Amino acid sequence: MIEAPALEVAQWFNTKQELALADLRGKVIALHAFQMLCPGCVQHGIPQMQRVHAQFERDDVAVIGLHTVFEHHAVMGPDALKVFIHENRLAFPIGVDQPDGDGNVPRTMRKYGMRGTPTLILIDRQGALRFQQIGQVDDLAVGALIGQLLAEGPR
Amino acid sequence: MIEAPALEVAQWFNTKQELALADLRGKVIALHAFQMLCPGCVQHGIPQMQRVHAQFERDDVAVIGLHTVFEHHAVMGPDALKVFIHENRLAFPIGVDQPDGDGNVPRTMRKYGMRGTPTLILIDRQGALRFQQIGQVDDLAVGALIGQLLAEGPR
Amino acid sequence: MIEAPALEVAQWFNTKQELALADLRGKVIALHAFQMLCPGCVQHGIPQMQRVHAQFERDDVAVIGLHTVFEHHAVMGPDALKVFIHENRLAFPIGVDQPDGDGNVPRTMRKYGMRGTPTLILIDRQGALRFQQIGQVDDLAVGALIGQLLAEGPR
Amino acid sequence: MIEAPALEVAQWFNTKQELALADLRGKVIALHAFQMLCPGCVQHGIPQMQRVHAQFERDDVAVIGLHTVFEHHAVMGPDALKVFIHENRLAFPIGVDQPDGDGNVPRTMRKYGMRGTPTLILIDRQGALRFQQIGQVDDLAVGALIGQLLAEGPR
Repeated sequence: MIEAPALEVAQWFNTKQELALADLRGKVIALHAFQMLCPGCVQHGIPQMQRVHAQFERDDVAVIGLHTVFEHHAVMGPDALKVFIHENRLAFPIGVDQPDGDGNVPRTMRKYGMRGTPTLILIDRQGALRFQQIGQVDDLAVGALIGQLLAEGPR
Repeated sequence: MIEAPALEVAQWFNTKQELALADLRGKVIALHAFQMLCPGCVQHGIPQMQRVHAQFERDDVAVIGLHTVFEHHAVMGPDALKVFIHENRLAFPIGVDQPDGDGNVPRTMRKYGMRGTPTLILIDRQGALRFQQIGQVDDLAVGALIGQLLAEGPR
Repeated sequence: MIEAPALEVAQWFNTKQELALADLRGKVIALHAFQMLCPGCVQHGIPQMQRVHAQFERDDVAVIGLHTVFEHHAVMGPDALKVFIHENRLAFPIGVDQPDGDGNVPRTMRKYGMRGTPTLILIDRQGALRFQQIGQVDDLAVGALIGQLLAEGPR
Repeated sequence: MIEAPALEVAQWFNTKQELALADLRGKVIALHAFQMLCPGCVQHGIPQMQRVHAQFERDDVAVIGLHTVFEHHAVMGPDALKVFIHENRLAFPIGVDQPDGDGNVPRTMRKYGMRGTPTLILIDRQGALRFQQIGQVDDLAVGALIGQLLAEGPR
């Protein structure tokens, strides 16, 4: 088992308390890494996460957005993200990946070895990293992956 | 466990040998009941089954079409269905539900208590009927259902 | 000016009286040649004609379907077409292209030199053939073509 | 004839020289007012303008984007817009509507009396304002409108 690395988040939206993967044991986690000005994220990934959020029970699947800004930092700051979330009526928790003092790639993105956005990450009920893929993944495949993790049952 | 009733099929397409559910133990079965002139089948159900057929391994998921003609029998006979299958390049096995001497509803459709088309039926690796729904089901939900049945593992 | 050849129709649906192009002078005519079991017709052409029918005033644009059966004649007869029209709730007039004793291609299809289905034909207010194309044509292009013919004004 | 008011633009992208409506006489102008963080603009309006830009000859139709920021000014400045244009590979000229010292609504937006974004404006070959509508307009309707203006011929 490869445990999913802890999130490093500078600021949270859509949640009253900070989220930690460790606190979500027992749920399948759909972690969606995106940038608000990345067309593939806006047109495919974000709407898909809204469908995942609507499809599954809150106690079964936790949807989390992670704003992994690795380019154009000046125009994708938290203030811009706040407007993006509001205008797109996103309801699931979204965290700002912690900027790294030592380069453009933020910390969580670096720890997971993500190569760009959108990246979909699935974490099982025990906290293990089970799926990570950049680009578009079809709804049928995302559903099948989540379904398989759900079927492993509560631990 | 409710065992899925056996198929009663008058004629098969896209398979050299007759299919029986009992012979498919160990696979998840996606059974799609349709009529070739039902718009909801043509626009939603059939393309979805093509995606399911493309998405999963043959040894994991068996996709079967069932032509459950319960209206307009004169123009949806096997000859017309053969053209429909050819023109739409459908590659998965399709059976013609056995007409019943005693009414419009064919036999398999009656045994399952289907109320119309399209109807999606999912059968688990042990042959149990696990899901039956008329109308459109989203790809995400279909994927999740199949994924859960797949995760129950080979028996 | 190339006058659009007269339609040769064996049977009409969705109209109380037989239609003749000559009787429609003053209107732009969108003539859609299709086969009920041609996937490109069902998925693209027919829905587009429904949009055209809904978009323009009846006094400006006449939408006419033409069932040009050139293959699989046995299963695309008028009885099957009647069911297709009913199930798809098509509201515009549809004629069955007159079968030709001397081959598979019906008469109107032959006169226009159509090479398959779907084929979109546009006829101006004076009865001149202005556009004929097989395959998919985008809504934007269809709209622009109709718009230009409409702007030529009543004659 | 209502002459389309002159554009007041603070900064241009995708054009070497400043554009003025008066310099475009003889062309039909499709003017698309948008905000880069308005979902209806990103999902519908902008892709439609890309299709319009691809469909028509440059000498016939001039597509112009106008960034009419009337809310969230701090995060939709020219630097952010530049990234948006780059990431979405927009190729048509885009101007930043001139901010007004006296309120949130920029000058061109105010002069046209626009009520929000996206707004589609069509201007004929003589410079007359012929169409202005907020919200989504179907491709078929946009095509028909442009086609009619094109058919009025060069002046």
